[in-house]
Amino acid sequence: MRNLNLSEITQIVNNELEIFNHKFQGSIWSENKIVNIIIKYLLKQKGKRIRPLLVILSSKIIGNVTDRTYRGATLVELLHTATLVHDDVVDEAETRRGFPSINAVWKNKAAVLIGDYLLAKGLMLAVDGNDFDFLKVITNTVKRMSEGELLQSSKTRKLNNDEETYYKIISDKTASLISTCCEIGARSVTNDETKILAMKNYGENLGMAFQIRDDILDYIGKKSLLGKPLGGDIREKKLTLPLIFALKNSNQDVSKIILSLMKKNEKDINVDKVIDFVKNNGGIEYSEKVSKEYGQKAKEQLNIFHDSQIKNSLLELVDFILERKK
Amino acid sequence: MRNLNLSEITQIVNNELEIFNHKFQGSIWSENKIVNIIIKYLLKQKGKRIRPLLVILSSKIIGNVTDRTYRGATLVELLHTATLVHDDVVDEAETRRGFPSINAVWKNKAAVLIGDYLLAKGLMLAVDGNDFDFLKVITNTVKRMSEGELLQSSKTRKLNNDEETYYKIISDKTASLISTCCEIGARSVTNDETKILAMKNYGENLGMAFQIRDDILDYIGKKSLLGKPLGGDIREKKLTLPLIFALKNSNQDVSKIILSLMKKNEKDINVDKVIDFVKNNGGIEYSEKVSKEYGQKAKEQLNIFHDSQIKNSLLELVDFILERKK
Repeated sequence: MRNLNLSEITQIVNNELEIFNHKFQGSIWSENKIVNIIIKYLLKQKGKRIRPLLVILSSKIIGNVTDRTYRGATLVELLHTATLVHDDVVDEAETRRGFPSINAVWKNKAAVLIGDYLLAKGLMLAVDGNDFDFLKVITNTVKRMSEGELLQSSKTRKLNNDEETYYKIISDKTASLISTCCEIGARSVTNDETKILAMKNYGENLGMAFQIRDDILDYIGKKSLLGKPLGGDIREKKLTLPLIFALKNSNQDVSKIILSLMKKNEKDINVDKVIDFVKNNGGIEYSEKVSKEYGQKAKEQLNIFHDSQIKNSLLELVDFILERKK
Repeated sequence: MRNLNLSEITQIVNNELEIFNHKFQGSIWSENKIVNIIIKYLLKQKGKRIRPLLVILSSKIIGNVTDRTYRGATLVELLHTATLVHDDVVDEAETRRGFPSINAVWKNKAAVLIGDYLLAKGLMLAVDGNDFDFLKVITNTVKRMSEGELLQSSKTRKLNNDEETYYKIISDKTASLISTCCEIGARSVTNDETKILAMKNYGENLGMAFQIRDDILDYIGKKSLLGKPLGGDIREKKLTLPLIFALKNSNQDVSKIILSLMKKNEKDINVDKVIDFVKNNGGIEYSEKVSKEYGQKAKEQLNIFHDSQIKNSLLELVDFILERKK
């Protein structure tokens, strides 16, 4: 069976996504002109909106979308946007979604501050809505995301990483927020902790699969689809699952040579050689196997829910994440 | 009468400050080694702790210090530390309190993330303590602080600023948090909105006086006391009250020359010439007059409270802020 594309999967909640878009755009503005100029620029680079989508689907598999669901969706999208802007400072990224990044246009200064602003706006929304259960979940998520990024950055500096630490890093930096989206969606319509936990675990496993797929695409993706050149992680000396596995799986003398290649200055690294090494030593297959296992675990979480179109969408979303090309 | 120094003013709450220090240090750690290395470094550079002091004094002028007071004090100090770390990225500062800044030692990457971590830790503390009134106040403060910094940064880039905008900027970026400290201290022990408002306004006015004094010290302070060279604002092309007034108060041709001096590259700016210009055109006297007016307004807020040692400390704190040399 052909996998569906994202707009086919999300069709069923098109109406809710449109309402979300209005609410999100209404929630983001400041009285401050310079803040709004930057926000206008950010809104142009609309992402895939997977996080609000997950909030909405996770509420609809249990009950009916409420105001709280939309606030939750807005909260996670504001937080996600904030962390993207901060990540671009962290990664010294020059582009984001094909546009020059905020820090490239307005310097780190504005990027740090607009990130803080967006985070505060999201939290204010939850405070004003008395969504204290959301605040509990989201503040812990912010903490885990920063810890995950810091752990990744320390491993990157030392150019060492192992599989176990890699999973810890991606769970904290990526899966935590995806999981939070699903938890918040569920919490917005039910107090049933069994259902909430199922959605939280669905999100955690989907998030792991999502990040591993991201890391695979940095080796096998198409530049034209990704909007950025391959091998970004190699240039940043970031050891992700495909490379971690290949280094362990290959002759140790060869591994040493590869690592010494990566110690060079960014522009002197022979990226193609590292990519070939990973491909030739099973790094891609292994990572695909692991991401599929996470995808399978995500799907199993949905067993407690009876069949429905929404459940189908959540199942199809797993396959979309596992197979996506960008 | 001789003005008291800070330790004489705070003596009366030494016991509470010590308890605060223990609680603060107990609240900050992570399970993540790299996070803790940076935090250890941050804790070495203990600041003046004026914000927790204000929380404690503002609670004690009304009632008895509670667990909520300590959580409030910890929350504001965590937030303040977070913003200092982010500010150093914003200002590209190389030192902070005489130490190399986090961004200078660990790069912007770690500075952005550790700031996010500290902010999240503070908010988690309030969430876990069910201090939702604190969350309402503090998230709005985070928003205002980032807006204030962004407005300042846009004015700096254009090298234009007027007195009204200057007050808006310092109210948002500095006075908002000082005011929040006093409000949270009061809220931790009472529901009486008159008393809470009095302390909030005390803090707002004290915060304005505090920032204007800071901006004056950049012109007339002693490098040995400040731990940084004079004229930092000039080099950053930041137009603060002393210079804004001098530019308006002097011959417009001379003002144009001064502004054109400041358009040069940082290292080519004749800082001494700008400092002399400000001094010779009444910039210091005017700023001192304005800061004293804010100090007076802060003191007047305390009229509703009966006389006490704590009230004396809060009054003395105003004079200390107005006269401080560092």
